Amino acid sequence: MNYPADPGLDDEVQQSEAWFRSTLRTLVELPTVSPGATDDREILPGLLAAKEILESIGAKAELVGTRGTPTMVAQLRHPEARAHVVVYNHLDVQPADGATWKSGHPFRFDVEDHPERTFLYRGRGATDDKGPALCAVRGAKLAIDRGAKIDVTFVWESEEEIGSPHFTDVLTARKDALMADAVIVSDTIWPTADQPAISTGLRGALHATMSLRTAGKEAHSGLVGGVARNPIKELAALATAIDNASFWHAGAAAPDEDEIASFLASGFDPDYFMHAHDLHHVTTRDPLEMMLRIWARPTFELHGLAGGYAGRGTKTIVPDAAELKCSFRLVPDQDPMAIGDSLVAFVRTANPQVEVKLAGSFRPYRANTHGVVHRAIHDALQAVTGRCPVTVREGGSIGAVPMIARELGIPVHFLPLSLPDHGYHAPNEYFDWRQAKIGIGSFARVFKTLAG
Amino acid sequence: MNYPADPGLDDEVQQSEAWFRSTLRTLVELPTVSPGATDDREILPGLLAAKEILESIGAKAELVGTRGTPTMVAQLRHPEARAHVVVYNHLDVQPADGATWKSGHPFRFDVEDHPERTFLYRGRGATDDKGPALCAVRGAKLAIDRGAKIDVTFVWESEEEIGSPHFTDVLTARKDALMADAVIVSDTIWPTADQPAISTGLRGALHATMSLRTAGKEAHSGLVGGVARNPIKELAALATAIDNASFWHAGAAAPDEDEIASFLASGFDPDYFMHAHDLHHVTTRDPLEMMLRIWARPTFELHGLAGGYAGRGTKTIVPDAAELKCSFRLVPDQDPMAIGDSLVAFVRTANPQVEVKLAGSFRPYRANTHGVVHRAIHDALQAVTGRCPVTVREGGSIGAVPMIARELGIPVHFLPLSLPDHGYHAPNEYFDWRQAKIGIGSFARVFKTLAG
Repeated sequence: MNYPADPGLDDEVQQSEAWFRSTLRTLVELPTVSPGATDDREILPGLLAAKEILESIGAKAELVGTRGTPTMVAQLRHPEARAHVVVYNHLDVQPADGATWKSGHPFRFDVEDHPERTFLYRGRGATDDKGPALCAVRGAKLAIDRGAKIDVTFVWESEEEIGSPHFTDVLTARKDALMADAVIVSDTIWPTADQPAISTGLRGALHATMSLRTAGKEAHSGLVGGVARNPIKELAALATAIDNASFWHAGAAAPDEDEIASFLASGFDPDYFMHAHDLHHVTTRDPLEMMLRIWARPTFELHGLAGGYAGRGTKTIVPDAAELKCSFRLVPDQDPMAIGDSLVAFVRTANPQVEVKLAGSFRPYRANTHGVVHRAIHDALQAVTGRCPVTVREGGSIGAVPMIARELGIPVHFLPLSLPDHGYHAPNEYFDWRQAKIGIGSFARVFKTLAG
Repeated sequence: MNYPADPGLDDEVQQSEAWFRSTLRTLVELPTVSPGATDDREILPGLLAAKEILESIGAKAELVGTRGTPTMVAQLRHPEARAHVVVYNHLDVQPADGATWKSGHPFRFDVEDHPERTFLYRGRGATDDKGPALCAVRGAKLAIDRGAKIDVTFVWESEEEIGSPHFTDVLTARKDALMADAVIVSDTIWPTADQPAISTGLRGALHATMSLRTAGKEAHSGLVGGVARNPIKELAALATAIDNASFWHAGAAAPDEDEIASFLASGFDPDYFMHAHDLHHVTTRDPLEMMLRIWARPTFELHGLAGGYAGRGTKTIVPDAAELKCSFRLVPDQDPMAIGDSLVAFVRTANPQVEVKLAGSFRPYRANTHGVVHRAIHDALQAVTGRCPVTVREGGSIGAVPMIARELGIPVHFLPLSLPDHGYHAPNEYFDWRQAKIGIGSFARVFKTLAG
């Protein structure tokens, strides 16, 4: 089923730019950096502004307390609703260092003209995830104004960037309000700028630190070098052994032929990918192999090493201790708990003095690609963009998604709106009006379909 | 030849404590942290105080300028001198962090009573190398006062801790004044607290950084992990490969049977060694194997890694760049230049994008153990301590030593006075009066012998 053209709706989407720009400005300019990096209370003004935005379209909004920072839950109810959709987004953003931003001000909202995208909306959180969140709000408003009989519940979490450690509190506290026919998440990306795509899976993750103390204090490398154990050297060897080990590949399901065909049809462009992420060197330039590696295979990454001397010049010491921060990305059907157990066992054998701390995990997720909701999203994107969307996967993780699927038993679907060039987590992050129009129009159509 | 007892000298040594304590206090309380860590000019008050101390015993002292900070050269001349000895020490000290010192004040001189050592003199630089330097000064004064016809030239460098980068300037500028029969260096240590020892070799060193940039900015490990190259992971693998490689063992001469026998006679005590350096875990506990590893075999050490995220919590990024600080300790007859070339070639093959920077090197050094100077030191230590000194090696490096041997062609000998428990480079560093007495008495006897 394809949508008929709907010029009235398209006009109203087009006329939404002033509202969209002003509302996005409000949300971007109230910094909502993830808890942990700042005082938790600093996130409240942004949450309260979000609540007001949802109230302004007629929703009953509240901040639901958790053991961490609150989640805004806003219920837009129709007396004759024929369906209920939960839209999940998040209000928290990655920390931003002004020194790496062209403007010097990550939390000042700047609008730039752009030949293909009309406007670029620049500021931390513009694409991850405030812009997409507002697309769903505007889409719901337009759909309901045009007669769609649907209940929409907006769930805007404030701890997504740190792995949603308290999100189950929200699921428990508002279970009744959240029991919907479907959950839609827009916090994923198209693989290229001009090919609409629907994500059908998320990687999971397992975070760990590995630390080793070999002495009570650092020592002179001349006096002790050769006899003192060097914790940085041993952690480097351990990381190399883990990288070469097979335990963390266990349970990874290879994509089937249909999915491979879909990847190949996605228009994934190695040059665009490298440019978007500013990668100078990559592990492969074969497009399919690249897609498989970022979407469908586990990885082991080292994020940083603490300990020893990393300042100017050098210091000829054998360090007393070091800590390696690392994580695995995991794919369906890997079990983070089982991989964690294997990691602990591997390290215990390889270097018994190393202490492994597992620091949180997310399950991988695979979406249903055959139901009515997937079809509605597919047709909406096609109607709005004029192009047939491809199905791809997502290399990142959204902690809340497997929690929702597991706790509420509701299928989660994706309506991706961001682009690689938008710069998720990167300096100079932006969203753009072309993608916002696609988002508003698509959400409105999806709501209309599901209500109909 | 053993010395006859010399009770007059011993009395004068015993009466030197007030002078020694007061002079060491002056030098310790004028912080002379190595250049680079602080403003170069901060080292001048300490150098001027040293000059005054040498002038007070009748030497003609001057600060010899270099491209870096000056070296104090003080000539104590005898009209009928029969020999000329240069004594090399250094005035610069390692940086010290007050937070890690029991007193909180590394540059406040504290004296503690001690049952076997009478007094401990605590403060940064007390044992490395200000206390031993003053032993030679006092020893020369006593020897000359008691009739020794000898010229002694004191050379106190101020850049030893950073590898003596400008010391050849001093050798060039004062070549005539430095052309001596022998050079004696006391900046080495006994392997245990009660066994006098003479160092017969120094390890050399080769410093390097290895850096890798794979992207223009850090990236989200979900979006790019698997395709983006992770510079920390690659440097860890490279370091592990280097550690397992053989190139940096090339040219290492194994100690002969006599030297092994001497090591075995040294009383090296694994427990004392571990306690002195606060090592919880070591690579071996076999005493001979430990000695071989710290004195007679090369090592490869990692000192620190810059890049990525090492703060609180974690940050799921693939870093854009990383730099590993490392060094090799080298032994006779290894050539640091050749090892450096091999390192560059190894890295070029293993990971061509890694940039290696060689950051200075010292040649290893082997002392002559059969000449008159060695014998004089041996007999002096035996006369003063009542124990036959053993010959051992030194795991550390003293940049100036191979320079002196090479540039001036004068043999360098060691008269070690420090102990492992003194804490070279460590918090709460100290020297002690028992070792000072041994030093003063031994230097006096050596000067007397060489003059005789």
